Amino acid sequence: MKPSIPKGTRDFTSEILFKRRKLISILQENFEKFGFTPLETPSFENLSTLMGKYGEEGDKLIFKILNSGDFFKNVSNEELESKNLNSITPKICEKALRYDLTVPFARFVAMNQGQLPLPYKRYQIQPVWRADRPQKGRFREFFQCDADVVGSESLQLELDLILLYDAVFSQLNLPVEIHINNRKILAGIAEVANIENQLIDFTVALDKLDKIGKEKVIEEMITKGISENSIEKLKPVFDFSSDYNESINKLKELLQTSEQGKKGIEELEFIFNSINEIGLNSTELNLNITLARGLNYYTGSIFEVKAKNVEIGSIGGGGRYDNLTEMFGVKNMSGVGISFGLDRIFLVLEELKLFSDSDSENIDFIFANYGEKEALEAMKLIQNLRKKGKKAELYPQKAKLDKQFKYADKKNATYMVFLGKDEIETNTVKVKNLKTGEQVETSLHKLDEVNF
Amino acid sequence: MKPSIPKGTRDFTSEILFKRRKLISILQENFEKFGFTPLETPSFENLSTLMGKYGEEGDKLIFKILNSGDFFKNVSNEELESKNLNSITPKICEKALRYDLTVPFARFVAMNQGQLPLPYKRYQIQPVWRADRPQKGRFREFFQCDADVVGSESLQLELDLILLYDAVFSQLNLPVEIHINNRKILAGIAEVANIENQLIDFTVALDKLDKIGKEKVIEEMITKGISENSIEKLKPVFDFSSDYNESINKLKELLQTSEQGKKGIEELEFIFNSINEIGLNSTELNLNITLARGLNYYTGSIFEVKAKNVEIGSIGGGGRYDNLTEMFGVKNMSGVGISFGLDRIFLVLEELKLFSDSDSENIDFIFANYGEKEALEAMKLIQNLRKKGKKAELYPQKAKLDKQFKYADKKNATYMVFLGKDEIETNTVKVKNLKTGEQVETSLHKLDEVNF
Repeated sequence: MKPSIPKGTRDFTSEILFKRRKLISILQENFEKFGFTPLETPSFENLSTLMGKYGEEGDKLIFKILNSGDFFKNVSNEELESKNLNSITPKICEKALRYDLTVPFARFVAMNQGQLPLPYKRYQIQPVWRADRPQKGRFREFFQCDADVVGSESLQLELDLILLYDAVFSQLNLPVEIHINNRKILAGIAEVANIENQLIDFTVALDKLDKIGKEKVIEEMITKGISENSIEKLKPVFDFSSDYNESINKLKELLQTSEQGKKGIEELEFIFNSINEIGLNSTELNLNITLARGLNYYTGSIFEVKAKNVEIGSIGGGGRYDNLTEMFGVKNMSGVGISFGLDRIFLVLEELKLFSDSDSENIDFIFANYGEKEALEAMKLIQNLRKKGKKAELYPQKAKLDKQFKYADKKNATYMVFLGKDEIETNTVKVKNLKTGEQVETSLHKLDEVNF
Repeated sequence: MKPSIPKGTRDFTSEILFKRRKLISILQENFEKFGFTPLETPSFENLSTLMGKYGEEGDKLIFKILNSGDFFKNVSNEELESKNLNSITPKICEKALRYDLTVPFARFVAMNQGQLPLPYKRYQIQPVWRADRPQKGRFREFFQCDADVVGSESLQLELDLILLYDAVFSQLNLPVEIHINNRKILAGIAEVANIENQLIDFTVALDKLDKIGKEKVIEEMITKGISENSIEKLKPVFDFSSDYNESINKLKELLQTSEQGKKGIEELEFIFNSINEIGLNSTELNLNITLARGLNYYTGSIFEVKAKNVEIGSIGGGGRYDNLTEMFGVKNMSGVGISFGLDRIFLVLEELKLFSDSDSENIDFIFANYGEKEALEAMKLIQNLRKKGKKAELYPQKAKLDKQFKYADKKNATYMVFLGKDEIETNTVKVKNLKTGEQVETSLHKLDEVNF
């Protein structure tokens, strides 16, 4: 049998893992500096916890786990004959793999609200699974990385999440733009254009302005039944510049009759004014009134992060939502959260060569093996190097030096150490730098200081 | 709907995660010092990769994943009617959750042998899933932690794995005994007692000597059909002391007619003599000829680790095996590996109070919130503290101080900082140590130096 792995999954070897670990530790460090604490939930949840939370399409993409034992025991013969997948599935599968981090988080908060500090600020970095058709850059097992706060409506939290994005991407030396919008602005625009009932159609079309241009967006709106009259009123929306002051003034004019529109402007102004006072390290904050994302979900601020100088789409996003935990019977838990697109951020860092050599760690010393007696002396030196914090190992058996070099090369070792009979007699070792080819002889006791 | 989590699973909050992260980083650090590199395999494998590898009982405990889409499409009506679980399961489930780390590792090696440095030394720390009946200390989702080397028969590797155990448990300040045995010794004993065909029955019974005593072990052997004559020959085996030299001499006498027995003694002597020369930090190495573990699996050395001063059973184990990858068509890959029982080690460290306070990290500074204007000034200080590496946050909205204190308390904060109108005017802050109740006033610019 020729072994294989399931499609859409990957084995990760050290080359990738060392870099990914570096990225994750920068994320963790910053989350914690900002007062977030980690949470890990189980890989599977009760099927009923997940079903119905991601729409009909999402339900299909949830990986269900077959009950152990007699999985047919709750299915009647008639039902089995009917082959009705929808009714049989919940009877043969009680559990399912995590589809995102949001629903398990909501489930956790609902179960533990009494014990948690409120507002509760958690971050979570774990794999999720989706039965999507695998394709380039899309996997059936991939990592999500979320930071959320629930239990407070304060705009201070939006502010702090922007500062968090700035802290992470600045530490990664990755220049990004944070785009921000507010659902209340979009709802206000819909209100003044008399298309309040078509808010979603309107924003889905508007969201594409960058990609397909004004004409096509208007075309789509007309197809969706938005009237000529409304589109006339929407015209100013298509011509917003990236200048914040200009945009805010235009919004104020456009939305003067909409209460929620004015509330949205007020929220944006608070955020921009505060950020202006506090300052960002390397990030650009842009008001982008075409930004909608999963609008249904958001009730206030909407964020999206884009890497500069790289065409890869969004590498992060989030926003303010209400009633995350309502699906589990806990009301009035307003929250705001952001996510980091780990896989994409990883790709961008690779593309811009922002990982350093030390991020793909290697082994410091590999000792050549000349046989049992020399090996024992080598092991004493190796143990000493390890105590000094070095990575060191002995090639496990006597073999042609050629073979031992090849091994050291595959392991990306820095130094090869030679401790033969002659060296043992004279208390010396020969050390070869495998990157430069240079070789020196040094005292046994000074091996840990070698650096050439 | 009242939410719950599946039985046998756990949510992990920061209190546990910070400590677990500490433990895992000590493991990683030592694995890498010893030349091991990390590997992560997907959470699910093809069902055919896993089935038949863990015995009939194991097959039942594997969590299978229902195919997405029309999962009945490969099942005929007759088959469905038959409700034959064994034949239907592989037709409705192509994938299954990882049951251990060994089989995915073997699958990975078989798929990638051409690219890997040989011997290939990998460590792997990942969750596994088993449909076991949950009980105290036994979960359906739990972590395994393995270090293996494949591609070399050298005893140097056994030696290095003992040193690795010693390095890890010494760094954890956890006193342990490593018990060691060798399958060749056990086979040699069976040979001289004329019970070569009853090797497994013999070792399963012998393995219980510590727990049930000599009489009961002999009883079990008789029940299993081992003759009086053989038991007479086995007698010396029940009275081995913990003294290494005495035991080796007794073994030499007992096994003088068994070639494999003598080979086993030679291997043990190499290991003990080398360890004697190199030295261990804090670990005791004991020859234990009753140790068998999953004997079927092992072909040479057998290891087991026990914590001293705590009754918890084994916290690690492993041994030499041949042909790990043979199940995937790759022959002659002798290997040796050890595992660390993460959950149990964690419990022992807790019980012996070996985690330090800094392992359950908290937040350094929480700023009281006096309203929008003061909050803005607070945010500037907070950003400065974060840049200096401190963990700091603002309580998100104005509220009674009482409530803000309660929050800081729940988050286990070290300092509460008060920056009101008066303080802003005088460029000072009040800082209260929440652990001691002590309060000081200091200059705005010296907040990051606070330490009382």
